[in-house]
Amino acid sequence: MEERGSISIHTENIFPIIKKFLYSDHEIFLRELVSNAVDATQKAKRLSSVGEFDGDLGDLKVSVAIDKEARTITISDNGIGMTAEEIKKYINQIAFSGAAEFVERFKDSGDKSQIIGQFGLGFYSAFMVAERVEIVTKSFQKDAEPARWTCDGSTEFAITSAAKEERGTNVILHVAQDSEEFLETARIKTILDKYCKFLPVPVEFEGQIINNPNPIWTKQPAELTDEDYKNFYKELYPFSEAPLFWIHLNVDYPFNLTGILYFPKIKNELELQRNKIQLYSRQVFITDEVKDVVPEFLMLLHGIIDSPDIPLNVSRSFLQADANVKKINTYITKKVADKLNDIYKKDRTTFESSWDDIGVFVKYGMLSDDKFYEKAKDFVLLQNTTGKYNTIEEYKALVQANQTDKNDQQVWLYTTDAEKQHAYVEAAQNRSYDVLKLDTVIDSHFIGLLEQKVEKTTLKRVDAEIVDKLIERDEVKESVLNDTEKESLKKIFEQAIANQHMTVEVTALSPDDAPVIITLPEFMRRMKDMSRNGGGGMMFMGDLPDAYNVTINANHSLNQRILNAKEDNKERIARQAFDLALLSQNLLSGSALTAFVKRSVDLIDKE
Amino acid sequence: MEERGSISIHTENIFPIIKKFLYSDHEIFLRELVSNAVDATQKAKRLSSVGEFDGDLGDLKVSVAIDKEARTITISDNGIGMTAEEIKKYINQIAFSGAAEFVERFKDSGDKSQIIGQFGLGFYSAFMVAERVEIVTKSFQKDAEPARWTCDGSTEFAITSAAKEERGTNVILHVAQDSEEFLETARIKTILDKYCKFLPVPVEFEGQIINNPNPIWTKQPAELTDEDYKNFYKELYPFSEAPLFWIHLNVDYPFNLTGILYFPKIKNELELQRNKIQLYSRQVFITDEVKDVVPEFLMLLHGIIDSPDIPLNVSRSFLQADANVKKINTYITKKVADKLNDIYKKDRTTFESSWDDIGVFVKYGMLSDDKFYEKAKDFVLLQNTTGKYNTIEEYKALVQANQTDKNDQQVWLYTTDAEKQHAYVEAAQNRSYDVLKLDTVIDSHFIGLLEQKVEKTTLKRVDAEIVDKLIERDEVKESVLNDTEKESLKKIFEQAIANQHMTVEVTALSPDDAPVIITLPEFMRRMKDMSRNGGGGMMFMGDLPDAYNVTINANHSLNQRILNAKEDNKERIARQAFDLALLSQNLLSGSALTAFVKRSVDLIDKE
Repeated sequence: MEERGSISIHTENIFPIIKKFLYSDHEIFLRELVSNAVDATQKAKRLSSVGEFDGDLGDLKVSVAIDKEARTITISDNGIGMTAEEIKKYINQIAFSGAAEFVERFKDSGDKSQIIGQFGLGFYSAFMVAERVEIVTKSFQKDAEPARWTCDGSTEFAITSAAKEERGTNVILHVAQDSEEFLETARIKTILDKYCKFLPVPVEFEGQIINNPNPIWTKQPAELTDEDYKNFYKELYPFSEAPLFWIHLNVDYPFNLTGILYFPKIKNELELQRNKIQLYSRQVFITDEVKDVVPEFLMLLHGIIDSPDIPLNVSRSFLQADANVKKINTYITKKVADKLNDIYKKDRTTFESSWDDIGVFVKYGMLSDDKFYEKAKDFVLLQNTTGKYNTIEEYKALVQANQTDKNDQQVWLYTTDAEKQHAYVEAAQNRSYDVLKLDTVIDSHFIGLLEQKVEKTTLKRVDAEIVDKLIERDEVKESVLNDTEKESLKKIFEQAIANQHMTVEVTALSPDDAPVIITLPEFMRRMKDMSRNGGGGMMFMGDLPDAYNVTINANHSLNQRILNAKEDNKERIARQAFDLALLSQNLLSGSALTAFVKRSVDLIDKE
Repeated sequence: MEERGSISIHTENIFPIIKKFLYSDHEIFLRELVSNAVDATQKAKRLSSVGEFDGDLGDLKVSVAIDKEARTITISDNGIGMTAEEIKKYINQIAFSGAAEFVERFKDSGDKSQIIGQFGLGFYSAFMVAERVEIVTKSFQKDAEPARWTCDGSTEFAITSAAKEERGTNVILHVAQDSEEFLETARIKTILDKYCKFLPVPVEFEGQIINNPNPIWTKQPAELTDEDYKNFYKELYPFSEAPLFWIHLNVDYPFNLTGILYFPKIKNELELQRNKIQLYSRQVFITDEVKDVVPEFLMLLHGIIDSPDIPLNVSRSFLQADANVKKINTYITKKVADKLNDIYKKDRTTFESSWDDIGVFVKYGMLSDDKFYEKAKDFVLLQNTTGKYNTIEEYKALVQANQTDKNDQQVWLYTTDAEKQHAYVEAAQNRSYDVLKLDTVIDSHFIGLLEQKVEKTTLKRVDAEIVDKLIERDEVKESVLNDTEKESLKKIFEQAIANQHMTVEVTALSPDDAPVIITLPEFMRRMKDMSRNGGGGMMFMGDLPDAYNVTINANHSLNQRILNAKEDNKERIARQAFDLALLSQNLLSGSALTAFVKRSVDLIDKE
């Protein structure tokens, strides 16, 4: 036995499948039908330009109209139209791609990017919302007879002759009961705004042209002014502040991609600002989920990418592996790095004043992409607590003299919260140390990157040690107290503090330093931060209590006074001094704070 | 002219479309093919039970095997098999639903839920990953000839005779180059675990049965112990703590739905805990995005819902409007409310100890669903700062005597942060007032709901007024200071504070109350909170600075001391007293805090 044959598809069952499976979102039907109409006008233009059509093209246009009473949506164009024969060929045989044949025929005359969509399948999306579809059409060909095609979407079609004077096609959808929403003006307007805003032929709806057929990304950068870019940004994001700057993408080979990416003012609203890049294919809006097309760290950019070379409707894993997508990724990354470098070099003032907005993605990019790091390391800025900016090289030179320790390592000091760590920042500044502001979420990772990449450099948070030990030197301060006195002072404080996670030490500091200083060692804190943020390593550490060092300043007059105070007063004064140190480290709260406040009121009341 | 005809579909073009559009995720092919195989065994069982097949059923089983060398995946079953004629009918005609016909034939013998999937379209998903597909099959029918069908997915099929001893079907996929991932054991195991874990017939892969054919949701609650439910939970979420309790769903009419929903321990990890409900259709995993099937406020529940009556693969707006989905929503909501009421009544101790986990969705449910509010208002718990729980009715009785104001309104006091508002909570407790803990994100909305639903009741945060005014009464405390003294005290403080957003007032309080108290009026604070959270109303308010009231206690000895202090000391002491009040309200930070700490050190140093 051997038998060969062709697999057949039963049409009475294919429509429900199209309705269910073709697109998850029914509103897509309008994109498909308007794209087809635009396509038909583009083809007319094309035929005219190669001399195959010598009539008057007229003003090429697509119209969308709703008739609520008749319950219809009509999409009309004055494109090439169809003869009855062509209807049979292109409409009655599903998945026979009219556009493919057209492209094939004209492929040697270049400029095939003019043809959008495929006439084949997209047309049938009409049945997602219509119970009956009519086509009334007249071909551009000489003496062509107009024809009408109707189909109720489930069984048979009928072709009859029709009355139509003008060249072109009207597609009339008789809207199904479960799709009445699409008879609302507002709904149709919203869909047209979403998908058709930049189609290359004027699209009319209710007396108005709803699209901009020549969006600026299709033009050459040389034709455009800054105003043009800013106005286009406003068109895309009406409620946003002006962008910082932008990049005009324009590449033909090895893939085709145009577009404009804007650097917005983000102001820490990171989440709000994602997913603002729109993906187009030949001026038809496709999606605003560009997650796999644009490198993750550039997802904060806004704007438009238009490329027919990004595969649509395929699974994510496939997209990530796609060679074109990888090349597009690399291209965009390089373009962004070059643009930033350019601004840094040409206009450092603007670059610095934009740093709050661009710093996040520069740092994110450096962390996630080694090639980007190599470019960005020369223009990434470090801001200090006085608001000054330095590059890595500049900063190395700046702190070399004053912040190199006895092991010849530079120690860069930073604060994660200048307000909360104010006492420590002030103490460091009093020593003429520079303090960096590294206070964003990404900075905790950026600190690690700096230590890894910048030679002979470590970073320490300002409250990691008492200020004398932040940058280790071979200096020993003399103590006014002898060892016995130090030992008894230590005991007094240990009893007053009564907390096993606080390690007390008496050290000779300047008399002007605070009497009690609480510090949180750098290494432990980082481990615990990492563990809390779920970033690898020893997860259990996040649950450990913080272990602080308490340094008692042997040379502060208050501590000498404690030693000399009446026995029953020593611990009370020590506790008050310790509470003040807790306040500076933001560790006093709840009932302990209430008790402290009461004690302090008593203290001034008795003054 | 009039012409009628049938729309035809050209097969040479349908395969790429299936490949692209049918499912966005290629891994689905395995679900479809294994479901078909299970289906074939179910049919065998069914035919045997109605006496149409009198052979030996044997152990019904489905097997999946990979041959990396031959680059094939084979799915085998010992189900009903097919004759060459049946292949032509069911395989060669796409979208002809074999299952539909089968269901039709047996619809009067009941139990149609046994038939999963449609043989038609699902089979073709094989071409998403295979360049060639073979079927080797032998029908259960007497003397049936085994047959082999092959197709390279683009043009023609061929049917030849084959050698196969046993009843059943083998589907052999010759995997395409771009789908090599599916030749990896780990990949196939992952897919089977995801989609096939609870299929009703044993599924073997690499010598192991990978599924549990009788998951507990298909059984009757009476057959099951608590251990069974807990073990099943562990099977679903291996790394989770045991659930609090669960609901067994089981309904036949007007829709078919089974399943088990668990209340997990959420511990504030709200986001991590979403999307843990899995949707099945006749034991085949469909999705874990049940957003439109389960009411929003129950999305934190875990577990499984199995229903053939939820429309799949349709757009979201359609799903929301679907009558069955609406009924399912209502049913689940009612079941959850009944279960909670049941536990509350039978075991209040357990109910209270679970409140941290279930409180969020009870409150969320009350806010979003009026029917749920009506049921939950009798068991929703209010926790106070001492950890005690009361229902709304109980709480009304509890505070009636002590917290009814002169207008016969009950005033319920609450804290949004018992630690930060400690001084105010303590002051209220010293008056024997009860203070509620309303400190979660949802509580700010829940407060509004309580005021709206519980008659003659208002809620005030403990720091909205000085404690004497929280519950207004017609009492006036006598002042030790006369009006002139009050006036000059006010001036001293106004100068010391020097902040236009702080309104100073001198009032006679108890001498034991604090000398200075800073409060933030309830109405303004709520408006500003709402505005900050983007919740309607006057958006600009979020940007206004907070406007505080500063109450100076005329009867506190410190304030009398200030009036009597040396002129150049008055303002200094007032400032220190004010700073202590700022500390209690968490308003002292940065340089102001550092300066305060220094001043305080000096103060005790001079003591």
